[in-house]
Amino acid sequence: MFDRVWLNANLCTMAGAAPEGVTTGVTAGGAAPGGLAADALGIVEDGAVACRDGRIAWVGPRAALPGPAADTVDCAGAWILPGLIDCHTHLVFAGDRSGEFEQRLGGTSYADIARAGGGILATVRATRAADEEALRRLALPRLDALLAEGVTTVEIKSGYGLDEATELRQLRVARGLAAARRAGVATTLLAAHAVPPEYRGRQPDYAALVADAIVPAAAREKLADAVDVFCDSIAFTPAETARIFESARAHGLPVKLHADQIADCGGAALAARFGALSADHLEQASAAGLRAMAAAGTVAVLLPGAYYFIREQHAPDIAAMRAAGLRMAVATDMNPGSSPALSLLLMLNLACTLFRLTVAEALLGVTRHAAAALGLADRGMLAPGLRCDLALYRITRPAELCYWLGGNPCLGRVVGGEG
Amino acid sequence: MFDRVWLNANLCTMAGAAPEGVTTGVTAGGAAPGGLAADALGIVEDGAVACRDGRIAWVGPRAALPGPAADTVDCAGAWILPGLIDCHTHLVFAGDRSGEFEQRLGGTSYADIARAGGGILATVRATRAADEEALRRLALPRLDALLAEGVTTVEIKSGYGLDEATELRQLRVARGLAAARRAGVATTLLAAHAVPPEYRGRQPDYAALVADAIVPAAAREKLADAVDVFCDSIAFTPAETARIFESARAHGLPVKLHADQIADCGGAALAARFGALSADHLEQASAAGLRAMAAAGTVAVLLPGAYYFIREQHAPDIAAMRAAGLRMAVATDMNPGSSPALSLLLMLNLACTLFRLTVAEALLGVTRHAAAALGLADRGMLAPGLRCDLALYRITRPAELCYWLGGNPCLGRVVGGEG
Ligand SMILES: [Zn+2]
Ligand SMILES: [Zn+2]
Repeated sequence: MFDRVWLNANLCTMAGAAPEGVTTGVTAGGAAPGGLAADALGIVEDGAVACRDGRIAWVGPRAALPGPAADTVDCAGAWILPGLIDCHTHLVFAGDRSGEFEQRLGGTSYADIARAGGGILATVRATRAADEEALRRLALPRLDALLAEGVTTVEIKSGYGLDEATELRQLRVARGLAAARRAGVATTLLAAHAVPPEYRGRQPDYAALVADAIVPAAAREKLADAVDVFCDSIAFTPAETARIFESARAHGLPVKLHADQIADCGGAALAARFGALSADHLEQASAAGLRAMAAAGTVAVLLPGAYYFIREQHAPDIAAMRAAGLRMAVATDMNPGSSPALSLLLMLNLACTLFRLTVAEALLGVTRHAAAALGLADRGMLAPGLRCDLALYRITRPAELCYWLGGNPCLGRVVGGEG
Repeated sequence: MFDRVWLNANLCTMAGAAPEGVTTGVTAGGAAPGGLAADALGIVEDGAVACRDGRIAWVGPRAALPGPAADTVDCAGAWILPGLIDCHTHLVFAGDRSGEFEQRLGGTSYADIARAGGGILATVRATRAADEEALRRLALPRLDALLAEGVTTVEIKSGYGLDEATELRQLRVARGLAAARRAGVATTLLAAHAVPPEYRGRQPDYAALVADAIVPAAAREKLADAVDVFCDSIAFTPAETARIFESARAHGLPVKLHADQIADCGGAALAARFGALSADHLEQASAAGLRAMAAAGTVAVLLPGAYYFIREQHAPDIAAMRAAGLRMAVATDMNPGSSPALSLLLMLNLACTLFRLTVAEALLGVTRHAAAALGLADRGMLAPGLRCDLALYRITRPAELCYWLGGNPCLGRVVGGEG
């Protein structure tokens, strides 16, 4: 006896036959040269999903449904996907950067905006000044916009505190959002996002503070599920990154990396060396670095919103990622400076249009591979034993989720069997 | 005594001091080099809008509100703009092109898709096969997505029938949408959108049919507010366009033009010669053509969704448009082939990010200048005597409407004083 069963639906299980990492030479329907086959979507027409104790108990063609259920939901022909996962956001922050956006379009230079106290340090100032309740009140509508499209798990990074108290406050607010809404939240400490004003000119000292004090504090208070660093030519060095990662390892926390966005600093290989869950951005990463990631099982998180919004010219090397058999995820990078993106579905369109991901690659990127980027083995597919996190859509085929610019076909969400 | 007054709101009247067409040399707050000043937004903080008989009766600072009202709406600090106007859409059609999108990403060529019956002729086939009720059922969710963001007037073109009966059916459905929803609909006959299969190889004959039979029929049945032609290297010639425009003129219908998107065919100048309401796309238009448009009062409609979606490389010459004092509008171009865009707010972000419009230019483009592109003198600003069409937003400044990627800050719409 199941608790509940969803019927009269088409399923996109994301648990198709194509094994992860094997992405070359597939030529079946809809496959890109070297890309994943459409059947990686694991489509089941006229399917059923059954739930027991918050977990998926059975998935398959309706005709083969093995038993009765206490409750039956008629989906009226909707498509069901695993609840979407946004595996890279910075959505807890205070302050408003739309004014800067307007100034830049009006001809004011970045340098002048920074001199006037703008840029990331404006967000840091406002976030430090905001208490938990204020941060929570600002974050909830952003989270709600993501959830409205069928997202059921969101990663949220700190990184606008840049001191121990504010970084932990951001993480505490992020944890609290999971209770305020039906959603899973994975928290990531990103204290090494920028150098705070009081450490100006002393970046190594701040990196040491992160490694020696802030990472241990976050671990002690169990506020972080992972540790992230912004490693780039304009940010922390590989050596500083390694020191912070060693602290994370000592405290039992997995790592992630903002890597090789502005310049190739060897971030991809560094992430691989530490067995990172993911390396994110990767516009400038070398093919060798990408191969090292694939060998280490590190997921490549693509952030097309930032690429678009700051008008980057050099796209990540998708062909090399495919050739390496690298798993690709897609996320919003929701943040006020470089990606004010409140729509994960729009990121699917950007990833397909700008990076030429196939529909199957893009959808794996917000489900199965996004779960892997967070180290979450209990979600991202419609498969027995996984959390019953579902997203229901009024569409005629999964490609519609990547095709439209705007609009929201989401009919509802199910989280842990409830919804 | 007013019928209703909206209080406790900030207003963006779009009726600022900067006269239309004077766009150079302005340097006040937020102005681009050569761009429109931010004060073109006509901001009134703590303002009030009063309505009588469906028209705006008074606009200004709340403290100066001259009289009482039968009904008072507390906007709780929201911003009020004139209801947005999407002045270029093709949203009445049948058929689904998301499958083509998937195939193209999978490596199938345009030529192979066309050989298999895809492309615009697939939409024509499906639209011809759909009755009014089917077209209406498909169009409504698309319209609803636009309205949900604060749109109160939508232009809708035919152009997927390519025969008299189907073109008129599309226009009839478009007209009917205005009754089904609280929205203004302007209809445009675009029978000269493509050459139908039965006229293959006989483009001049089809252009003659449009001029001699379809335009007169649409005029006779009062189904079209304007006539449009797709004039480009891959579409109708300037001579064919002129012939169709002469027929429109003879039947008292204003004209618009899909001009100079793929190649400079002199479309901008041709539009100007016929006193067109607008010329749209204009990626390849010459500076001389743009100057001719400005002199004729023809509006330049920018369609950044299509530019983005089909990955055009040559942006419209915004600097030349500014230098010419040309009014610019921004629209979705909502269509299944080159711009499956259901969000006018997203078009604001695309116009700012990809074309570098200022916030003021972008917002004028979906209000005052969009109204001009439709020849509608009764809307597009908050000003006494105009229709009381309002859009309410939860934002801290108008720039937020251009800044976010996704999300929907619209709190409500008012159409003709009702809402
Ligand atoms: Zn980030
Ligand atoms: Zn068009």
